[in-house]
Amino acid sequence: MDPDAVAKAFVDHYYNIFDTNRAGLVSLYQDGSMLTFEGQKIQGVQGIVGKLTSLPFQQCKHNISTVDCQPSGPAGGMLVFVSGTLQLPGEQHQLKFSQAWEMVGSFRVV
Amino acid sequence: MDPDAVAKAFVDHYYNIFDTNRAGLVSLYQDGSMLTFEGQKIQGVQGIVGKLTSLPFQQCKHNISTVDCQPSGPAGGMLVFVSGTLQLPGEQHQLKFSQAWEMVGSFRVV
Repeated sequence: MDPDAVAKAFVDHYYNIFDTNRAGLVSLYQDGSMLTFEGQKIQGVQGIVGKLTSLPFQQCKHNISTVDCQPSGPAGGMLVFVSGTLQLPGEQHQLKFSQAWEMVGSFRVV
Repeated sequence: MDPDAVAKAFVDHYYNIFDTNRAGLVSLYQDGSMLTFEGQKIQGVQGIVGKLTSLPFQQCKHNISTVDCQPSGPAGGMLVFVSGTLQLPGEQHQLKFSQAWEMVGSFRVV
């Protein structure tokens, strides 16, 4: 499976969970994970999921515009970059967003 | 020096060179560097600088809105994420942009 396909599958999976069952994101982070969200650094899976589930909106829909990826580090990780729009309930206009991940561990592509 | 200050200094330095002497970006990449630019993967310092210096505009001005960073990998690297706007000559409206770096090597913060 080529890296771009892995990155695209991950991004689709991540935002599908975010939009339908945000607490389920717990399975995609590890204790060593860090999230930087609008300038706030949050370490560890419980803190990250706590932050994401306490955002001031319940329903949302991410629409992905671009997914880029490239190799990261010596252990087979990937740097993934996504841009798109976020539709919130009651909002006429979509918000633009972008996010980057450094993915480690089991994303070695062989 | 704290990591956020390092990231901010790097970002200011990078876009200052980009906007005033784009070929000078050669000093900020290594042979192992990779740039993914609007979906195109470019490996190595010569290819990266060749791409950036051949973009279809000469003058530009980046305005930085946000700089986020967090630790990356076991060797003291950083993941840096920036968003902002790009003013091109003759364009009435600024373009929004965002970019992520994985910085390796000498960015160990002690």
